Amino acid sequence: IEMAESSRTTSLEHQMNSMMAEIVKLQRDVVDLNKEIASMKSKDQSVAFFSYLTDNIVDPSAGTRVTFRGVDVNTGSAYDATTGVFTAPVPGVYSFAFTASVPPETSDHDIHFVLKKNGRQEMYVFLDGHTQFWLQRSSNTVVHLNKGDTVWMEIQWVKGSNTVAGHGNFDGGDQYHTHFSGFLIHGD
Amino acid sequence: IEMAESSRTTSLEHQMNSMMAEIVKLQRDVVDLNKEIASMKSKDQSVAFFSYLTDNIVDPSAGTRVTFRGVDVNTGSAYDATTGVFTAPVPGVYSFAFTASVPPETSDHDIHFVLKKNGRQEMYVFLDGHTQFWLQRSSNTVVHLNKGDTVWMEIQWVKGSNTVAGHGNFDGGDQYHTHFSGFLIHGD
Amino acid sequence: IEMAESSRTTSLEHQMNSMMAEIVKLQRDVVDLNKEIASMKSKDQSVAFFSYLTDNIVDPSAGTRVTFRGVDVNTGSAYDATTGVFTAPVPGVYSFAFTASVPPETSDHDIHFVLKKNGRQEMYVFLDGHTQFWLQRSSNTVVHLNKGDTVWMEIQWVKGSNTVAGHGNFDGGDQYHTHFSGFLIHGD
Repeated sequence: IEMAESSRTTSLEHQMNSMMAEIVKLQRDVVDLNKEIASMKSKDQSVAFFSYLTDNIVDPSAGTRVTFRGVDVNTGSAYDATTGVFTAPVPGVYSFAFTASVPPETSDHDIHFVLKKNGRQEMYVFLDGHTQFWLQRSSNTVVHLNKGDTVWMEIQWVKGSNTVAGHGNFDGGDQYHTHFSGFLIHGD
Repeated sequence: IEMAESSRTTSLEHQMNSMMAEIVKLQRDVVDLNKEIASMKSKDQSVAFFSYLTDNIVDPSAGTRVTFRGVDVNTGSAYDATTGVFTAPVPGVYSFAFTASVPPETSDHDIHFVLKKNGRQEMYVFLDGHTQFWLQRSSNTVVHLNKGDTVWMEIQWVKGSNTVAGHGNFDGGDQYHTHFSGFLIHGD
Repeated sequence: IEMAESSRTTSLEHQMNSMMAEIVKLQRDVVDLNKEIASMKSKDQSVAFFSYLTDNIVDPSAGTRVTFRGVDVNTGSAYDATTGVFTAPVPGVYSFAFTASVPPETSDHDIHFVLKKNGRQEMYVFLDGHTQFWLQRSSNTVVHLNKGDTVWMEIQWVKGSNTVAGHGNFDGGDQYHTHFSGFLIHGD
């Protein structure tokens, strides 16, 4: 009996060792899974904003940064409504969209906007003037940003008198004449 | 021998208890991982649609909701082509885009569109008329929606005679003159 | 003592068996979690590009594919700048955006662009001419692509003389007059 007992114990000891090895492997798997999920979450953060021009900008000069003081969405707080500057909170590929509206003037007028990334031009929207009708134009872009890179809209060039239309309030509601929005498509 | 045997068994019992504790911890880890993944999946659902106007809308009146009866994409079935209404299936930040085309008329004409979120204006596209050329305009917006919030395009204001151009079929193919699309950027 | 010892060993054997069953269950859980994560990653790949027209296209004929030779972003390498063709690396819902700029001509002129998906028209942007001002127009679309589906921009129709404006370099910077971009919204 003693021998049998000892052999049962030995067998248990072997099983125990192999189970312990399995448990250590499982613990490593769980560490890896948590790392994987943390990496996925960092690439899939929610960064999105929608901002609009509140007041008309009358006769701006070239080089003026457009400050969209109205903010409807600012998930991740990457857009600063006091400066008009978006600062990338994570590296990745972003989408930006811009729409501008300008009323007719009594003589020819041109206004050109650019999206600037760290001061370099990346998107270009021009509204070359009309003496009869309002103009409205829009464009989109996809840019890669490193963490901390900055993006804003700037008036690049003007000719004659121009008004960039701010927030309207007629026909029973709000009119977002001129707005700037963006979001993270995918983190690096 | 008996004493040695008993001491081996005692040692096994201790190991067994500590292993059991490790297993219980691992089981909790797996529950946490599954929760984390479920949360990530709910924030990263596929919600996207592309809809287009099939027939011309002739002389619409203000307050008319635009029903885009043609649907090419409707992942998540959030857009209803019989009503023109998009209903958010999950809370989150969404992108919407609208493009409209109108032919010239014999006299001055204006047509203004707005994106309505639960009846409130969120995006504004105007096509202020021309007696010579077709107009085409486009804009994008980013909005936050709670589950069940509704979004649609509406004609906010008209002046004179206007036709909103539907689906064309010339020059050897389809023309989507006027269309409305959107997608979930990121769930809350 | 022997009996007690044997009974302790029997108890350990039972515990061992039930622990082994728990470990096997945990191993299956880890396999499932890894599968789940692999599936999520395949649906959330980073596919995005931004391309622009480098040189003016002068008097193109209908049926000309537009080759945007300038590339700022090409995550996933799905856009081919030598052919202008985007090939879907994974099945899913994609967003595409196009902006075109054309200068005025001395007489009436029209140019129509279409986004082609496997040769079928999916988005339509027209710039019906002006003898006084530059035109700029933009549109967006959402399309579903299977793996290997191809997308490009094509000139569908022209009337009179037209120039599609390429990359500008005035007023102290770059002007992307005409550009094409896109990204994966969500994999299938």
